[in-house]
Amino acid sequence: MQRIAFLGLGNMGAPMARNLLKAGHRLTVFDIVASARESFRPLGAAVASTIPAAVSDAEVVITMLPSGDHVKAVYLGDTGILASARADTLLIDSSTIAAEDARAVASAAATYHLDIIDAPVSGGTSGAEAGSLTFIVGGAAAALERARPVLEKMGKNIFHAGDSGAGQVAKICNNMLLGIQMLATAEALSLGVENGLDPATLSGIIAKSSGRNWALEVYNPWPGVMEAAPASRGYVGGFGSELMLKDLGLAQQAAGASRSLTPLGSLAQQLYRLHCQNGNGKLDFSSVKMLIAGS
Amino acid sequence: MQRIAFLGLGNMGAPMARNLLKAGHRLTVFDIVASARESFRPLGAAVASTIPAAVSDAEVVITMLPSGDHVKAVYLGDTGILASARADTLLIDSSTIAAEDARAVASAAATYHLDIIDAPVSGGTSGAEAGSLTFIVGGAAAALERARPVLEKMGKNIFHAGDSGAGQVAKICNNMLLGIQMLATAEALSLGVENGLDPATLSGIIAKSSGRNWALEVYNPWPGVMEAAPASRGYVGGFGSELMLKDLGLAQQAAGASRSLTPLGSLAQQLYRLHCQNGNGKLDFSSVKMLIAGS
Amino acid sequence: MQRIAFLGLGNMGAPMARNLLKAGHRLTVFDIVASARESFRPLGAAVASTIPAAVSDAEVVITMLPSGDHVKAVYLGDTGILASARADTLLIDSSTIAAEDARAVASAAATYHLDIIDAPVSGGTSGAEAGSLTFIVGGAAAALERARPVLEKMGKNIFHAGDSGAGQVAKICNNMLLGIQMLATAEALSLGVENGLDPATLSGIIAKSSGRNWALEVYNPWPGVMEAAPASRGYVGGFGSELMLKDLGLAQQAAGASRSLTPLGSLAQQLYRLHCQNGNGKLDFSSVKMLIAGS
Amino acid sequence: MQRIAFLGLGNMGAPMARNLLKAGHRLTVFDIVASARESFRPLGAAVASTIPAAVSDAEVVITMLPSGDHVKAVYLGDTGILASARADTLLIDSSTIAAEDARAVASAAATYHLDIIDAPVSGGTSGAEAGSLTFIVGGAAAALERARPVLEKMGKNIFHAGDSGAGQVAKICNNMLLGIQMLATAEALSLGVENGLDPATLSGIIAKSSGRNWALEVYNPWPGVMEAAPASRGYVGGFGSELMLKDLGLAQQAAGASRSLTPLGSLAQQLYRLHCQNGNGKLDFSSVKMLIAGS
Repeated sequence: MQRIAFLGLGNMGAPMARNLLKAGHRLTVFDIVASARESFRPLGAAVASTIPAAVSDAEVVITMLPSGDHVKAVYLGDTGILASARADTLLIDSSTIAAEDARAVASAAATYHLDIIDAPVSGGTSGAEAGSLTFIVGGAAAALERARPVLEKMGKNIFHAGDSGAGQVAKICNNMLLGIQMLATAEALSLGVENGLDPATLSGIIAKSSGRNWALEVYNPWPGVMEAAPASRGYVGGFGSELMLKDLGLAQQAAGASRSLTPLGSLAQQLYRLHCQNGNGKLDFSSVKMLIAGS
Repeated sequence: MQRIAFLGLGNMGAPMARNLLKAGHRLTVFDIVASARESFRPLGAAVASTIPAAVSDAEVVITMLPSGDHVKAVYLGDTGILASARADTLLIDSSTIAAEDARAVASAAATYHLDIIDAPVSGGTSGAEAGSLTFIVGGAAAALERARPVLEKMGKNIFHAGDSGAGQVAKICNNMLLGIQMLATAEALSLGVENGLDPATLSGIIAKSSGRNWALEVYNPWPGVMEAAPASRGYVGGFGSELMLKDLGLAQQAAGASRSLTPLGSLAQQLYRLHCQNGNGKLDFSSVKMLIAGS
Repeated sequence: MQRIAFLGLGNMGAPMARNLLKAGHRLTVFDIVASARESFRPLGAAVASTIPAAVSDAEVVITMLPSGDHVKAVYLGDTGILASARADTLLIDSSTIAAEDARAVASAAATYHLDIIDAPVSGGTSGAEAGSLTFIVGGAAAALERARPVLEKMGKNIFHAGDSGAGQVAKICNNMLLGIQMLATAEALSLGVENGLDPATLSGIIAKSSGRNWALEVYNPWPGVMEAAPASRGYVGGFGSELMLKDLGLAQQAAGASRSLTPLGSLAQQLYRLHCQNGNGKLDFSSVKMLIAGS
Repeated sequence: MQRIAFLGLGNMGAPMARNLLKAGHRLTVFDIVASARESFRPLGAAVASTIPAAVSDAEVVITMLPSGDHVKAVYLGDTGILASARADTLLIDSSTIAAEDARAVASAAATYHLDIIDAPVSGGTSGAEAGSLTFIVGGAAAALERARPVLEKMGKNIFHAGDSGAGQVAKICNNMLLGIQMLATAEALSLGVENGLDPATLSGIIAKSSGRNWALEVYNPWPGVMEAAPASRGYVGGFGSELMLKDLGLAQQAAGASRSLTPLGSLAQQLYRLHCQNGNGKLDFSSVKMLIAGS
């Protein structure tokens, strides 16, 4: 079993790290919040209080951080991961950040001759707990193969999107589509209901027709249509509107750089921004149904 | 086998009527275009040259017409279907029209004590030929049960959406969602490709993720991703952009009447209008990929 | 002084009619609400209780009604204005309605050889009280010249937009632009304020620059920037959001018929619909500032 | 007369610098393109081939550069303006860049105790030639007063928007509004024309009504309405669509950082991006009329 350093023990990182421990890996953890890292001591992990201490002896380094600025700060610089890691360490960044930031870190890693993949996840905190995350990977195929046994301890699906940064690109393409489709599903159901249809009947019809999509079928935004969906428990839990807004912002950032046309993605960003401005940032993103249907 | 009158023998109506003949029904056909109706004589249908002649002896009347104005003209008035049909005739309107028009005709039919359903279809001309259409039905459950044996000669799936007009509402809700999702899929794939991803790889990843939808999975708008999709044969055939624009207009009409919020549906309407203005109205609606990706 | 029949004595019609009385015209008034018409008796007007009684002796008939359906009901039919008016009566419809409805009524009037103009107004209730309305006129130039002396009793500016219906078209073009610009002004001021600028300073700069528009300059949506604007008195009074939404709907109706591209007009309609859905329909339309700025 | 260093001699910078020479200032110029700076030698300017050489003896330094990255590169670093300038030099950056970049440079300047203002301009190349630019200034009032005599050699209007960065914010607020209004004006005129109105008549009516704005009144996008406007000469010259797109991008960047709601600004950005994608980036931005009206 490999020696793994895990940096970033937030809502996603902590359960991912715990799954690695359960699988028998020797783990050294680091987080800038002391209580977050200390909580791993009783579980059998080594606890480091600096980045170099965390990574200097690791065979694999995994990071799960909230933004590209954090990722650059942790990887680059004199006391960063790149300067501190051993020659043959494999680097896995599972943060969701801008593709250009991922490529910048990958370029820097190349100057150290270190393998690195960007491996953002989907599946949320429940997927992280259950070890059933999806990893969307950018980087060399060989690096992905090195990472695969470790990723499989934390997730079920692993996709190879392309070179460095491609994991980030593929994830925001998926999430932009998801954000649009959740809004569009709310629009379609609202239009139906306000014209006399039953939301469950209408959802059932569309689910078997050409308008079907994941949001409608397994994460329906209309309360009462699906018992297990956040909509049926007051939109508590799930994937926060604030997080969807972050991903739509990353999509717009990428679209701006490549001058890609995203009229619906751009309007969706504005509507989630309005929804968060209305105080719903912590609710599951399917709560945009309330913006569309008035309550 | 019932005696059926079929009115409206266009691209959709003609193959639907032929499937009824094949199934052994005694058919009387009518179309304002003489050549369209005469083409049914060699097939064994009776040909009527007026609406009363077509419907006066029918047990079931089916209409497949291009707009609500046509439907109202054919059903209402002194020489219309309602005034000409026998007391127990079952009426099936498979045209895609505004729900308010469908309700107006249904109200008028009620004054004649005639059963009527609105039963718009999806599946396109190929579904009409193959007898594999989907019918989305509005009207009384009992009327739908009377119609079911006939509908099953022309289609595979039959959904009951609710009362009169509900079939139309459900269909435009589905098609509005479809129109949005085709555009959104084009945006997501274009964003990925312009950031270095392969469109087939990206489609494969999203198809197994939360961004999946029917358009991406079985009708991919990117040329070369799916051999059988219109995108891979120059967007010829399929469901025309012009027809999608018509349905998005019906959705906006319904949304205006019920004051429903449809920001994405409304923007999608504008983008398909632009796409048609650019001369692409006859191409399959997945050709909006060209609007988004620049070619 | 001409004998004038005035039909439709609502918030706009009543003060317009009073200005005609003040100018010395002999007035016969009609409204379906008895108290509305009776309130004119003490002012010296004759009061009619039917349309034929109101118009049969008039030289000029003026209508000010809430919708195209009302206008068609009042002009057409056996007891409508067209059937009841004298051969040489001049007809002036000041209602704001769809251009196609205006053209339909004008066509019907032509069969009676009656001169008619569509003459929708801007200026609101205060302009109606003050006799300072703007009339935007569609119809023959000769008919406008016949109407001019009467219009001048109620308004200050009279524009000839073109043939029948053109008054309606020009008005909705203007109001669509106004609705967009109010929203856009709110966006620009909000963006400035949230980046540290003073709204009055910023308004002053833009007012002398290429971003200037009527809303910013004389009807500023930011509270406190202009003492006289509705924004500085809680958005009470002025031109209701609900009325702006009606005009944006007429614009979309016209755009749909002519297949005109109006992406911003269409999005503005959705945003005002949301604003009204939030309970702000009675507030002045500059209150969309609250939608954009969050309060 | 002060000794001025002018850095950045492009389409805007060169005529601005020439106006300073004409006014009698002693000028040292710098541009990374040698031919650009050498063209000033015959006019009597000193020509520097490095930044330190250009600014080390200057009382005032003016920069006019294409992007925030250029501005940061030229001001910061060991051989940048800040490190090379004399203690009491006044710094004027007339580039249009992100407010956050302007603030970053201003912060750095403060550590050198150097006065700096951001002073982006409007008025285009013709305003630069004529010395009739508008300066929108951010920074301390005292610094603006030091700059005023110099700015007045190049422009006619000088506005003080607020602290450092405020000039940039005010400019993008204005230009976002302008970009929206040009599109909206094209929509309104197109809607009118496609419903039978004459574009000049309609423009004349709106210009005296509540829909009026600068674009409609003095820069009309419809060919033939205003002889002097770019629309009447094939949209050649003026302010390029590409430049408007840049400013809309800066507006979205600022809106993203402050989480400001700009639904129309965001859609306008997408539409100009499409327009540029269609090959119209070099045409005056009023050419978006072609996107809206189909030609």
